[in-house]
Amino acid sequence: MVARTPAPPRAVVFDAFGTLFDVYSVGLLAEQLFPGHGDALAQIWRDKQIEYTRLVSMSGRYRPFWDLTRAGLRYAVAHRGLVLDPASEERLMNQYRHLSAFPENREVLEALKARAIPAAILSNGDPEMLAVAVRSAGFAPLLQHVISVEPAQRYKTDPAAYALAPATLGVAAREILFVSSNGWDALGATWFGFTTLWVNRAGLPPEQLATAPTRTGTSLRDVLSFFPS
Amino acid sequence: MVARTPAPPRAVVFDAFGTLFDVYSVGLLAEQLFPGHGDALAQIWRDKQIEYTRLVSMSGRYRPFWDLTRAGLRYAVAHRGLVLDPASEERLMNQYRHLSAFPENREVLEALKARAIPAAILSNGDPEMLAVAVRSAGFAPLLQHVISVEPAQRYKTDPAAYALAPATLGVAAREILFVSSNGWDALGATWFGFTTLWVNRAGLPPEQLATAPTRTGTSLRDVLSFFPS
Repeated sequence: MVARTPAPPRAVVFDAFGTLFDVYSVGLLAEQLFPGHGDALAQIWRDKQIEYTRLVSMSGRYRPFWDLTRAGLRYAVAHRGLVLDPASEERLMNQYRHLSAFPENREVLEALKARAIPAAILSNGDPEMLAVAVRSAGFAPLLQHVISVEPAQRYKTDPAAYALAPATLGVAAREILFVSSNGWDALGATWFGFTTLWVNRAGLPPEQLATAPTRTGTSLRDVLSFFPS
Repeated sequence: MVARTPAPPRAVVFDAFGTLFDVYSVGLLAEQLFPGHGDALAQIWRDKQIEYTRLVSMSGRYRPFWDLTRAGLRYAVAHRGLVLDPASEERLMNQYRHLSAFPENREVLEALKARAIPAAILSNGDPEMLAVAVRSAGFAPLLQHVISVEPAQRYKTDPAAYALAPATLGVAAREILFVSSNGWDALGATWFGFTTLWVNRAGLPPEQLATAPTRTGTSLRDVLSFFPS
C-alpha cells in the first residue's frame, strides 16, 4: 500500500478574533487607562467574553457578541477592583472594533487568491463588528465570504455555528481547511469534520481531549503548507 | 397593593464542586508535588475542567467528568511547563475524590433536615465521584437525592442538565432553591427558572449578563435566610 497525500483543501476558512486580529492589542490602551493592569485586563476580558459565548449558547440565550464583549470588559474591570467610567468603556470598546491584524495575514491571503483558493471568515463576531474589522485591515478584496455565527444563534463550538461555513461555501467540511489560533476552536472544528490548522501563536499546550487538529503551526503562513507549491 | 413575601422553597438543591466541596483544596497537594506552583495549578486545573465540560456539551461529545478532570490536570501541568509522572497524577486525581467539605455545610444540611425540607445535589460530577465525596463527608443521611448530570449527557448550564432536578424531586423549578458558589452556575440556574442563591465565597464580581440570582450570600448559611424561623 502506498500512503496517498490527501488532496489539498478546496477552500480556507479563518477564525477572526485571535487568528486574523490580535485581541490582546487592546491591552496597550487598557494599560494606558489602568496602569499596571493592562495585561491582566486584556486576559480576563478575553476569557470572560469567551465564557459568556458558551453560557448563552448552552442555555439557549444567544446575545450579540458585541454585548458579550462589553459584559466581559465590565467584569474584567470589576475583577481588578477598578472603576470603569463611561468614556473609558467607550474607548476600550472602540479599540475592540479596530484590533490590529497579525502582520503575516495579507501575504497568506494574497497567496491563496493567487492560487484561486476561496478564503472566508467564520467568526463568533457580529456581522457589523466583522465588517468594520475586515474593512479596517483592507482584507475585503481577499475574502469571498465573511460569515458570522449570528444566523445560527449559537456560538462556536456548537455544530450549528460551524455548519454555516460548508453551507455558505458549498464545499464539504472535510474539504475546507479551518484555521484558528484558539485551541478550543481548532478542536471544535476538528470534531465537526473540517481539516484543521491550529496556529498556536502563544505556544500553549495542546487540548487534552484525545482529538488533535490536522496540523499545528506557529503562524498563519503554515496555511500554505497544505497546498503543494 | 401589598408586597407578598414569596413562599419558602419546597426543596434545596446544591451544586457539589466548589459549593459543598472545596475544589481548591487540591492546591495543597499540588504545592507539595510542584513547589511554587500549587495555587496556579489548582486554578488552571479547575478552569480547564470547566471549559472542557462546556466544549463537550456544546459539541455534543459528552465525556465523563472524571475524564475531563484528568484532562484538565494534564493541561494545567503542561501549561506550567512541568512534567506529570503517573504516580503524581494518581495522587492528585485521588485527592480530587476526597475534597474537603466546607465547614458550615453540616449545620446547614442538618437545619434543613430538622425543618423537613428535602435537600439534594445536582452536579456535573459522575455518579461514582459524587457517591465517594458524599460518603467521605458523611452527608448521605442528610441528602434525599444525589443527582449527576450524566443521564442528560450534557453539563450545566445546559437546560437538560438542570431539568434533572425538578424531574427527580417532583417539585417545580421555581419552588426549588438552587445553591451554587459558581457564579456561572447560579446564572444558568436562574435562567432555567430556579430560585437561586449564589454563595460568593471568593468575593468575585457578579456576572454581567443582566440576570441576577435571587439572592447572593457569602456562606452556605445564607440558605437558611430563605426559610422563616
